[in-house]
Amino acid sequence: MNSIGQLFCLTTFGESHGTAIGGIVDGCPAGLSLDIEVIQKELNRRKPGQSSITTARKESDTVQILSGVFEGKTTGAPIGFIIPNKDQRSKDYSNLKDVYRPSHADFTYDSKYGFRDYRGGGRSSARETANWVVAGAIAKQLLKSVNIHAFVSSVGEEFVLKPYHELDFKQTENSLVRCPDEEVAYRMIAAIEQAKIEGDSLGGTITCVAQGVPAGWGEPIFDKLHARLGKAMLSINAVKGFEYGSGFCGAKMKGSAHNDSYVEVGKTISNFSGGIQGGVSNGMDIFFRVAFKPTATIMKEQNTINQKGEAVQLQAEGRHDPCVVPRAVPVVEAMAAIVLADFYLLNKSAKIR
Amino acid sequence: MNSIGQLFCLTTFGESHGTAIGGIVDGCPAGLSLDIEVIQKELNRRKPGQSSITTARKESDTVQILSGVFEGKTTGAPIGFIIPNKDQRSKDYSNLKDVYRPSHADFTYDSKYGFRDYRGGGRSSARETANWVVAGAIAKQLLKSVNIHAFVSSVGEEFVLKPYHELDFKQTENSLVRCPDEEVAYRMIAAIEQAKIEGDSLGGTITCVAQGVPAGWGEPIFDKLHARLGKAMLSINAVKGFEYGSGFCGAKMKGSAHNDSYVEVGKTISNFSGGIQGGVSNGMDIFFRVAFKPTATIMKEQNTINQKGEAVQLQAEGRHDPCVVPRAVPVVEAMAAIVLADFYLLNKSAKIR
Amino acid sequence: MNSIGQLFCLTTFGESHGTAIGGIVDGCPAGLSLDIEVIQKELNRRKPGQSSITTARKESDTVQILSGVFEGKTTGAPIGFIIPNKDQRSKDYSNLKDVYRPSHADFTYDSKYGFRDYRGGGRSSARETANWVVAGAIAKQLLKSVNIHAFVSSVGEEFVLKPYHELDFKQTENSLVRCPDEEVAYRMIAAIEQAKIEGDSLGGTITCVAQGVPAGWGEPIFDKLHARLGKAMLSINAVKGFEYGSGFCGAKMKGSAHNDSYVEVGKTISNFSGGIQGGVSNGMDIFFRVAFKPTATIMKEQNTINQKGEAVQLQAEGRHDPCVVPRAVPVVEAMAAIVLADFYLLNKSAKIR
Amino acid sequence: MNSIGQLFCLTTFGESHGTAIGGIVDGCPAGLSLDIEVIQKELNRRKPGQSSITTARKESDTVQILSGVFEGKTTGAPIGFIIPNKDQRSKDYSNLKDVYRPSHADFTYDSKYGFRDYRGGGRSSARETANWVVAGAIAKQLLKSVNIHAFVSSVGEEFVLKPYHELDFKQTENSLVRCPDEEVAYRMIAAIEQAKIEGDSLGGTITCVAQGVPAGWGEPIFDKLHARLGKAMLSINAVKGFEYGSGFCGAKMKGSAHNDSYVEVGKTISNFSGGIQGGVSNGMDIFFRVAFKPTATIMKEQNTINQKGEAVQLQAEGRHDPCVVPRAVPVVEAMAAIVLADFYLLNKSAKIR
Repeated sequence: MNSIGQLFCLTTFGESHGTAIGGIVDGCPAGLSLDIEVIQKELNRRKPGQSSITTARKESDTVQILSGVFEGKTTGAPIGFIIPNKDQRSKDYSNLKDVYRPSHADFTYDSKYGFRDYRGGGRSSARETANWVVAGAIAKQLLKSVNIHAFVSSVGEEFVLKPYHELDFKQTENSLVRCPDEEVAYRMIAAIEQAKIEGDSLGGTITCVAQGVPAGWGEPIFDKLHARLGKAMLSINAVKGFEYGSGFCGAKMKGSAHNDSYVEVGKTISNFSGGIQGGVSNGMDIFFRVAFKPTATIMKEQNTINQKGEAVQLQAEGRHDPCVVPRAVPVVEAMAAIVLADFYLLNKSAKIR
Repeated sequence: MNSIGQLFCLTTFGESHGTAIGGIVDGCPAGLSLDIEVIQKELNRRKPGQSSITTARKESDTVQILSGVFEGKTTGAPIGFIIPNKDQRSKDYSNLKDVYRPSHADFTYDSKYGFRDYRGGGRSSARETANWVVAGAIAKQLLKSVNIHAFVSSVGEEFVLKPYHELDFKQTENSLVRCPDEEVAYRMIAAIEQAKIEGDSLGGTITCVAQGVPAGWGEPIFDKLHARLGKAMLSINAVKGFEYGSGFCGAKMKGSAHNDSYVEVGKTISNFSGGIQGGVSNGMDIFFRVAFKPTATIMKEQNTINQKGEAVQLQAEGRHDPCVVPRAVPVVEAMAAIVLADFYLLNKSAKIR
Repeated sequence: MNSIGQLFCLTTFGESHGTAIGGIVDGCPAGLSLDIEVIQKELNRRKPGQSSITTARKESDTVQILSGVFEGKTTGAPIGFIIPNKDQRSKDYSNLKDVYRPSHADFTYDSKYGFRDYRGGGRSSARETANWVVAGAIAKQLLKSVNIHAFVSSVGEEFVLKPYHELDFKQTENSLVRCPDEEVAYRMIAAIEQAKIEGDSLGGTITCVAQGVPAGWGEPIFDKLHARLGKAMLSINAVKGFEYGSGFCGAKMKGSAHNDSYVEVGKTISNFSGGIQGGVSNGMDIFFRVAFKPTATIMKEQNTINQKGEAVQLQAEGRHDPCVVPRAVPVVEAMAAIVLADFYLLNKSAKIR
Repeated sequence: MNSIGQLFCLTTFGESHGTAIGGIVDGCPAGLSLDIEVIQKELNRRKPGQSSITTARKESDTVQILSGVFEGKTTGAPIGFIIPNKDQRSKDYSNLKDVYRPSHADFTYDSKYGFRDYRGGGRSSARETANWVVAGAIAKQLLKSVNIHAFVSSVGEEFVLKPYHELDFKQTENSLVRCPDEEVAYRMIAAIEQAKIEGDSLGGTITCVAQGVPAGWGEPIFDKLHARLGKAMLSINAVKGFEYGSGFCGAKMKGSAHNDSYVEVGKTISNFSGGIQGGVSNGMDIFFRVAFKPTATIMKEQNTINQKGEAVQLQAEGRHDPCVVPRAVPVVEAMAAIVLADFYLLNKSAKIR
């Protein structure tokens, strides 16, 4: 239940207020030259406190690789890692102990487990996604010929309207809001700053493009490439929807307009299929879009109840992201990489060679 | 790869032009009184040839339960079943042997497996979903207190605009297009008939509501209830997107509007969460929406290539659905039931009792 | 729970008194030329009624392949198959309905499931092993360079004392008791005939040798090659023990005598390791031994109880094997092949290539 | 591949010469009061340097629980833990870099992975079993009503001849060699001391008894209770064989002598079945026996080859157990507990309740 992947498999543990979070990457083939600094750089992309529009909370996310690497190369043994929680001093969370925060997992965890670790959301904290970024950074190094790029394609009502191939992906990391369309980025930042002033929060969408995936990855029935990508994206905190290729817009089209005609082997004239047909990659760009709800923690006072069912007023404290979408960009990429790495390995036994 | 579910687990096999398709439901608890007729009724909802707006192709989908049931009750042993392919006489498919049909799995299967069973799409045929309906009908009987209802919420540009709780679900099966809003259904049917005349096809969306799911189902990290629902829906042929609760619209909202405040234990004043928080059900209605692309097989001539990369003209033959969405309604319900049955069983070990 | 294997995966269903038993082989690579007659021949080796020392019960075990094969080759799609139960007329089993037969699964199934299908042992019937033989025959065809050979190495107190490399494996199938040592075979047959006259039964052991397995198969920790072989063998009805290489005798040896020194790359001077070191094959012969208890069904009257806990006398009827070991030989080979096929595929992702 | 268990699932990582070893226990139900000291005590039973007959090497095995426990109780979140490697200073292992030690995993790992971490055996080191003891100690606490007891039943040629119910299990931990039969223990110790003087090593067997397992645990086909116990035991370093109940001796018996007649519900007059019938527990004692080969590392000079295939002389250094069997006792118990905990949870969905 805390694992993802069949051959390239990540299992994780950790709460934001324990000693450390961490995980195990099992199934990474031996002989891969692993650059630990590249992993750390990916983690740094995710960490809070990077700009005026993210939480001011500082977390030092330093990964320690504990096993599975020898003389710079993976050995085939599982790669264990931890990310110590530096800032775990026991802030007083007792005010949250009995309260069911709106649109958080407080009530559902209590229902499921009989009680909960209420400190910082416990296991439901998005801090867990740091583990995924570590595994994703390993997967990316395994997928040498694949390039995975995600960017913020909307915040609230501000949308990138250009198709992705008209954007300069190199600009994404230069943008506070991780949107490569400078003009739209400017409006997104303004919207987030306004929400912050109001003590409110915003949602948004992330678009992700995977280039260089060869034809043949994915399994035809219950492990379709897009189905596993969808599950991975829907695992990310705050995600409400997933679409690939033409997505929900495709549902409004006619077949004669939607069909992607082949013009040469491995190349179609359009790509409403999003690079996947029958659950298997066709060699074209794979792209998909992920919807994030607005952050549930807001600075406005809210009505809710406590465990006894009594009405209470909730006033959030601390420092929270008014919009998580920019920081979720490396998480989306990581999850895509984990899924693709697994299909890369699974495909090795597709046919007699 | 041909299995879904961890405890309640379906594994399937079959191509549309083999002797039979079928599957194995493993993990259904013993002692369940299983009504085989109810299973057959669900299958009948899915079968082709039911109306003027579906394919005129007749398939007799009769399920045979081969094991796992004794004196009307499940025994705890796996439930094996087959659905014989009655109409498998070898129509001449040789014209499709070398052709890569647009937006079909022809090229991707060839890439993955080195060759393919080209008769009727082979394993990629939507006939496979008949297996899922059988397993779903078993799951529904296991989930006695849960009511799962799906309906067509859009076809092409025709949308149901009313919220689902204003609809009369009893009307769904009375509608040719499985839309409970009679007026919209009328327009949907007209649109499908027009597409049929043009030799074209239409996409659409299905909305599904699960009522009666108690709080506590779902697993917090990589097996979130909505993530597994999403994966199941994205496994259905022609699906391009999935959203639950507020979905993609939620990404445009502010947190203060989107948050679902608790008004009593297990009850929130709004339900943008779609009945799921932190991946775990909260006792409210679970609802989600699934996008289907227009049928890839159209009656218009299309340009494509053959295996050698040569340009060819493709003229489809036979009888195909101009819009698969109405017939996909029981499939959506079945997949939802399979996922929920699994979480029902998994939740039995969530806490010490 | 009714599946074995991670990539090459068999899932089965069926009771001896249902319409059919069967299974699904998932994960067999595409492009394998599959000889169905070879599968049927393996099934014939297992079927009852072959000689004076096995049950006189006739079962026609005819496998029907329902999917996954096209023009003689595997397509990568799951291979579904059934074996109809021809002789399922409802013999009167009501005398067994309430009785807990000694050393059968009657009481344990009742405890686990609340009731049981008492006809012919239901799911606990050894008829299930016919499914395994089908899958094993597919696995053997996949493992072209591997030769798997099992034989009866003891019946009751009669043992083959020669090391396996002094035996002529070609004689195994010529022997009624599947023992290639003619003289020992003679004594085994006499022992079985004597047990039959007495209405009693005998146990025995099977030795299995796999030749041609290259170095590198097996996974180091919880999926050691011998551990998975052991689990597979212990899944066979009536098996009480498993040992490989030096086995239990090795526990009496000193390290200086037991250690297998390498004399060249991939070759050791002795083979107490049984071809496996650290859970991974080393290129030498893999061999192991499996212990079978005497058949639980005997013709002598026995004391036992019924469901109410009342003492009853049990007098078995029908035709049963006084010794199942000879018929278990193809089952042992099949299970070994299934395990090895899985490791063959798993090993494809062991290292960067 | 580095995981064991379906619902109660342990995944591990670590080499003896990395920073730490560790693991994740996933699926432990919430609400279990977990005594960390009890876990540490189990670890202490396994650690080296405890007596004159084990290795003099000192390892401080201190477990750190990193997650999944809050206010003394399990939360349902995965329990991450590490055991730091204190004594990892880089002893010079370069003499082993190219050598294939007899009956070690050196050659097989090289074959599988292309190279290996040669320091202290890397992933093949028995230090890994410390992780298993941690998980086993959690499983034992979950299995409150079950008592699992293992003891050394033979070392070399010295055997405990008494049946286990004539032994006083309380004496096991008082014995240097973990044999509760004082007189046999005395001879075992003498044999080990003699082997040590000779620079040689000894194998042996461990018997394990699980009392208090209710009827109904285990899954009938490929996950029989004894098959999963066998796989778990065969995963332990140096294990060559597994038998349960009558085991290999049972293969020599007649059915009339071997059958266990029921005398009351849940009670048989004999227990050759070892508490398991048809793969499912029957409420009687479960017992089994595990064979260990003699330690592969001996102090005598041995002939072997290096990577180039050249003959070399090998002279082991350092401190090694002349007989690992006494220290393997807590490991056997731990693995049994892990398997039983999983079946305890799996059985919760066996029937409709």
